Amino acid sequence: MIIDCHGHYTTAPKELMAFREAQLARFADPGKPEAALADISDDAIRESIESNQLKAQRERGADLTIFSPRAAGMAHHEGDEATSKAWARACNDLIHRVVTLFPDNFIGVCQLPQSPGVPIAHSIEELERCVNELGFVGCNLNPDPSGGNWQTPPLIDKAWYPFFEKMVELDVPAMIHVSSSCNPNFHATGAHYINADTSAFMQFIQGDLFKDFPDLRLVIPHGGGAVPYHWGRYRGLADMLKRPPLSEHVMKNVFFDTCVYHQPGIDLLFRVIDIDNILFASEMFGAVRGIDPETGHYFDDTKRYVDALDIPAEDKRKVFELNARRVYPRLDVALKVKGK
Amino acid sequence: MIIDCHGHYTTAPKELMAFREAQLARFADPGKPEAALADISDDAIRESIESNQLKAQRERGADLTIFSPRAAGMAHHEGDEATSKAWARACNDLIHRVVTLFPDNFIGVCQLPQSPGVPIAHSIEELERCVNELGFVGCNLNPDPSGGNWQTPPLIDKAWYPFFEKMVELDVPAMIHVSSSCNPNFHATGAHYINADTSAFMQFIQGDLFKDFPDLRLVIPHGGGAVPYHWGRYRGLADMLKRPPLSEHVMKNVFFDTCVYHQPGIDLLFRVIDIDNILFASEMFGAVRGIDPETGHYFDDTKRYVDALDIPAEDKRKVFELNARRVYPRLDVALKVKGK
Repeated sequence: MIIDCHGHYTTAPKELMAFREAQLARFADPGKPEAALADISDDAIRESIESNQLKAQRERGADLTIFSPRAAGMAHHEGDEATSKAWARACNDLIHRVVTLFPDNFIGVCQLPQSPGVPIAHSIEELERCVNELGFVGCNLNPDPSGGNWQTPPLIDKAWYPFFEKMVELDVPAMIHVSSSCNPNFHATGAHYINADTSAFMQFIQGDLFKDFPDLRLVIPHGGGAVPYHWGRYRGLADMLKRPPLSEHVMKNVFFDTCVYHQPGIDLLFRVIDIDNILFASEMFGAVRGIDPETGHYFDDTKRYVDALDIPAEDKRKVFELNARRVYPRLDVALKVKGK
Repeated sequence: MIIDCHGHYTTAPKELMAFREAQLARFADPGKPEAALADISDDAIRESIESNQLKAQRERGADLTIFSPRAAGMAHHEGDEATSKAWARACNDLIHRVVTLFPDNFIGVCQLPQSPGVPIAHSIEELERCVNELGFVGCNLNPDPSGGNWQTPPLIDKAWYPFFEKMVELDVPAMIHVSSSCNPNFHATGAHYINADTSAFMQFIQGDLFKDFPDLRLVIPHGGGAVPYHWGRYRGLADMLKRPPLSEHVMKNVFFDTCVYHQPGIDLLFRVIDIDNILFASEMFGAVRGIDPETGHYFDDTKRYVDALDIPAEDKRKVFELNARRVYPRLDVALKVKGK
């Protein structure tokens, strides 16, 4: 089977954004009424999925998407802790409804209620709710809840440890995924996302996070940011900084997805990164939605690029299925329960 | 001939750093004596170059390095405008001495006196001095003088225009090059540099800088950051944002160097980026100084990677020489004067 480990509910019914707008309006002016999410019918959810992600899933030949709320929508830099908590809950509940309506096609990963300056331990409650009550298999962890101002300690700082402890206890991975940018230097999907991927990887080289958490698993999306392209630089920096080789020091715990939107990039990714560290993903519908005039296919139809690789079938199976089942053990259990 | 467009004087005599330390000490405590650069003999400069950059240049087979002060040393976030001005002047004067001692092997590019919040127009005087009086052929422009806090407007903002006007008038390019990072999220050479490259490119997509300055030329170092690896993403984003194709909108004015420290990365660069937009460079001695255990050669011996490419000799000549002469016309003139 083919598992896409990185899909977002970017097509949620408009009531969700109306709720968000009302929520932020009240945050700006407490005299306004408390935001309430309007009723959304099952049909509206079905329609938003069937004509979009599910349609593309079928057309492109994937079976199951690990599905999370819209990443740019998380916007942890807006509002405060209570705002983010209510917003994460609303977004995650909607993902749960999608998964309930399409249990064979989607499985949930949650947005966390983060806010600048708020201890990450405050995000544990929502993670537990999503994993234990809603059957989610992972989370999206924002390394920069300030939205491009990067005022939070790096991921190797002990400030993050309470959350990593809980992840290990629940046996769920996190995708390291920033949200929108309020810094005009960083276009969200064109700079901030990629920079965050690159920065996180370098932080892992600098620190000893995986010595402290040998069972922690983190997915760096967008093909690992700039890392595979600069793999020699990172190997060299690890050496200069007297760190162990990357294969020992980082790559037992870190995985890259295949959200790289052209064949040469995918070719490079597979050339330099071990096959056990690559998870198939499309990010659809996400950063780039158009058709590549050079190929006549959608930029984010990443399955075509992987299909085109001249690698053994067993390697493709790892990337399409087995690696995801290993990195997301709760997904594996959920599939086995269904005899898959 | 083989021109390395990106070399730094990372091996300057210790008197230079002593000056810097004294300068910052006085900035912190105005009761301290004014910093003065101790005398540095020609022999000390010769020694610092001959046993390092010149030795590597000869061993690796390059002829001429476009040479600038240590990038991490610029540290525009430290001190104030006067500090940066005196520091840039000292660093540039030392580059000039190197060039004077080794006129066949080095030509100068200057550090600018930038500071957070200080108009970029204040950098023009030093640019003019270096170009008109010292014979420099370009400059390093820091898009984030706040050192990882990114509080300056993006490069497409009109705040930068006075400087771009002067660059066009002087017919010199800039390399977009950040300095050290005071943000613990960003390791300087492992994250901040690469992120800045990526961010700058995305800014150029968003803006209309080259419509306003059709003759402006900017070099994005470190192989263009993450851009070639995500070339499909950038082509797709340009399309989504209703921008012209990258070949028209950005790539008439933007060039990538070859500071990518492994063969697969260089292969990708040449596969996706037009040959006219690639300039040979090593960044030596810079980010990574060790020997790659996989090849037995220095990571930053980038000439080996370019040599290994199966491309026409005329393309290699563009990358090794002709593109640099076109992007740095004052270099071309200086070479022609010597009959080269």
